[in-house]
Amino acid sequence: MAKKTEEGITIEKEKDIAEWYSQVCLKSELADYGSVKGTMVIRPRGYQIWQEIQDYFNKNIIEKTNVENAYFPLFVPESFFKKESQHAEGFQPEVAWLDKKVTGEGERLAIRPTSETIIYDSFSKWIRSYRDLPMKINQWCNIVRWETEATKLFLRSREFLWQEGHCAYETESECSKETINYIKLYEKLCKELLAIPVIVGQKTEKEKFAGAEKTYTIESFMPDGKALQCGTSHELGQGFAKAFKISFTDKNENPEIPWQNSWGLSTRLIGAIVMVHSDNKGLVLPPTLVKNKIAIIPIIKGEDKKVLKKAKEIEQTLKSFNPILDDRLEYTPGWKYHEYELNGIPIRIEIGPKDLEKNQAVVIRRDNGQKKFVPLKNLKKVVEEELKKMHKDLYDKAEKFLKSKIISAKNFNDLKKGIEERKLVLAPFCGSESCEDEIKEKTKGATTRCVPFGSKIPKSDCIHCKKKATCEVYFSKSY
Amino acid sequence: MAKKTEEGITIEKEKDIAEWYSQVCLKSELADYGSVKGTMVIRPRGYQIWQEIQDYFNKNIIEKTNVENAYFPLFVPESFFKKESQHAEGFQPEVAWLDKKVTGEGERLAIRPTSETIIYDSFSKWIRSYRDLPMKINQWCNIVRWETEATKLFLRSREFLWQEGHCAYETESECSKETINYIKLYEKLCKELLAIPVIVGQKTEKEKFAGAEKTYTIESFMPDGKALQCGTSHELGQGFAKAFKISFTDKNENPEIPWQNSWGLSTRLIGAIVMVHSDNKGLVLPPTLVKNKIAIIPIIKGEDKKVLKKAKEIEQTLKSFNPILDDRLEYTPGWKYHEYELNGIPIRIEIGPKDLEKNQAVVIRRDNGQKKFVPLKNLKKVVEEELKKMHKDLYDKAEKFLKSKIISAKNFNDLKKGIEERKLVLAPFCGSESCEDEIKEKTKGATTRCVPFGSKIPKSDCIHCKKKATCEVYFSKSY
Repeated sequence: MAKKTEEGITIEKEKDIAEWYSQVCLKSELADYGSVKGTMVIRPRGYQIWQEIQDYFNKNIIEKTNVENAYFPLFVPESFFKKESQHAEGFQPEVAWLDKKVTGEGERLAIRPTSETIIYDSFSKWIRSYRDLPMKINQWCNIVRWETEATKLFLRSREFLWQEGHCAYETESECSKETINYIKLYEKLCKELLAIPVIVGQKTEKEKFAGAEKTYTIESFMPDGKALQCGTSHELGQGFAKAFKISFTDKNENPEIPWQNSWGLSTRLIGAIVMVHSDNKGLVLPPTLVKNKIAIIPIIKGEDKKVLKKAKEIEQTLKSFNPILDDRLEYTPGWKYHEYELNGIPIRIEIGPKDLEKNQAVVIRRDNGQKKFVPLKNLKKVVEEELKKMHKDLYDKAEKFLKSKIISAKNFNDLKKGIEERKLVLAPFCGSESCEDEIKEKTKGATTRCVPFGSKIPKSDCIHCKKKATCEVYFSKSY
Repeated sequence: MAKKTEEGITIEKEKDIAEWYSQVCLKSELADYGSVKGTMVIRPRGYQIWQEIQDYFNKNIIEKTNVENAYFPLFVPESFFKKESQHAEGFQPEVAWLDKKVTGEGERLAIRPTSETIIYDSFSKWIRSYRDLPMKINQWCNIVRWETEATKLFLRSREFLWQEGHCAYETESECSKETINYIKLYEKLCKELLAIPVIVGQKTEKEKFAGAEKTYTIESFMPDGKALQCGTSHELGQGFAKAFKISFTDKNENPEIPWQNSWGLSTRLIGAIVMVHSDNKGLVLPPTLVKNKIAIIPIIKGEDKKVLKKAKEIEQTLKSFNPILDDRLEYTPGWKYHEYELNGIPIRIEIGPKDLEKNQAVVIRRDNGQKKFVPLKNLKKVVEEELKKMHKDLYDKAEKFLKSKIISAKNFNDLKKGIEERKLVLAPFCGSESCEDEIKEKTKGATTRCVPFGSKIPKSDCIHCKKKATCEVYFSKSY
């Protein structure tokens, strides 16, 4: 049963998206701020979404690609970070350490900001022969990165939840192929489960993961014109394997070094879902992510037993959608509409005395407000169809938005103007880190998002430094 | 596909149970030691068991009692511990703190050793009215307690996984009733899922949770004559609610303080499963906890295509049990038997040329070695039955063992002798903490396990101090 909420969303998404976003997360009870600065509480409605992501992931990615779930320690010895130098450098500023007064003698212990090092230390014990490969492990866990910027629920907090997959292979080609496969499975998850369209591509040298040879990414685009990285997969080459002394004997008894990848997505995705789909009435969610998919509201004054009886019949008919039958007399129907809209219940069903006469109910969709008068005998079928349609409509709407924001830049002015107008700008680029830094400065914050899959090496010059372009890359501001 | 293991278990359970236990956990690849002292890695075979426990728990306890899963921060501010004095005192020695060089100004932050304080801080914001009650939250998470004693895989480590349920109620009676209900649901889980019989009862004043009014427990009994606490539920009264200023207005608009409980079980259970069921060949598990329930081993020399073809047919027939068909030629059938026994695969099916002639296969149960020649047409049915029987037989065997270890003591000599003989000794007891301390000293380590549910206040005197007994309690050594 929904709880009484003091008031709805008081600011428009179009006017102040940051404030609107916090209000939606807090008032729809997806999340709350933790008492420790920079932390957050994932409330049941938010955690339900994470559970749906976990279920989908375990069924469609873990099982189907023969990965096994496991759990590794939270603590990383300082020396582990130092084994892979780029990795250490990349994570150093945001690592939280344990107080040595408790942990005593010996080296410092970090709280994991990612688990490559701790997992590959185990791999070095477990991998002996080609028979042990591929070794494919995933873990669901909490991650700590001591961010100094202000907390944004789901999008930036000092602790978050994620999955991290870690695989070791016999050959480079198998490793490369699978690294790309995982990013494509992430794209599929975003489409099928979250109704979020993403751009898939490769990160530039500057933006790739600390310690990776290549990083692939899925990028979604938010209504405020900022990109949001939704998941990454990293081709690690043999760097970590060498650093952690992982080796195996091949079929001919020769010693070899395996090829590795890692890939992850996090509770950040929940932030993307809110940003992309929700509106000024509150939360809008793809129906699969919602436990109670329907709210049934009998329009009754006093004790109208006939209407209530019919509402209860409807509740039974629609049982598989976990409906909420809200027959509370102390709240008006209008107050209830508002409440279920705020909380993102996908479909509302109203039934009053007049509907009863006509043997119908009113079906209202949360996402577009569409209202249908449905004969009771068709109710289940219609609800089922509308829930499916809702997912597709949400995706299509978001895709249309994404496409409307993409432009191609021919010169630096195009790029600068595009970024000012909060677009996602495709431009030829030289690939150099310093050039990327300069572009960021001159555009007041645009970074490269990715070189999209399927793009060709352009014949033109770099949009900024005029050297030969090595790729076409998306620029935008980002979260 | 199973990996090559260097050697099996080299020590008998009866001779050195501690060494036997480590070998089983390590060699069957349930777990491994972490690089940081006191930590452990839960490997896929072990994590599979935890996932089965989670699934059972979410379906049979969380959903059925209207609890909702959520996630709260890892960090607990020092001041939170101080709010409930007994709680603070109880946990102080084993709390790990963050290094203030990173976290900066302000108070010290602990890694959660349990989450009462952090969750009740949120409850104080979320609970306003009787309409918000009962509030019933559960979280699955990692927990850190900086143990100083030596690590025992699953049984004692500085980090472990658990679930912790936290509820707030309008009335004391509802709270009491539910606290007892949760411990009974734990008992059911142990029986139905883990095939482990437990004793259910109440902890003494000395052994109860720091901050609780009453603690209930389920205790299992290990083959080495030590009890293992498998789960607890705590009736917290209003202590935490007062400390964290949680209050609500009742139906008459009066301010009231809610009544609370908390309840948890952890990856420690996996240790109990190993201890109770496994044997000198390695792991024995209740079939529900195993992903690959069957290993099919064709007895072939060279390339016997007929036998292999039939083995593949069997694999198809038994698909729902996730069978492993092991047709590797580089290993002998004997080597394979050994491997699947070590890894606790519940049923092994052998088929050779002679079986083929007779249209049969050989079905061997892991737990008791029972061998059955089964006509192929009955194979699926027999396998299904044997898997069910196996669960029941494991439970019955463990229950028989438990019962054989229970004795009643009439005087202190009985108690002392019983403890020396590694029994679980029921005795009349005064309930005093100091008396309990003295008994522990005189028996070289016996502690009270619980006052079993349904026991009466005895008419006799305390077994030790001769004051009036207030209860009958189980004494034993424990993990």
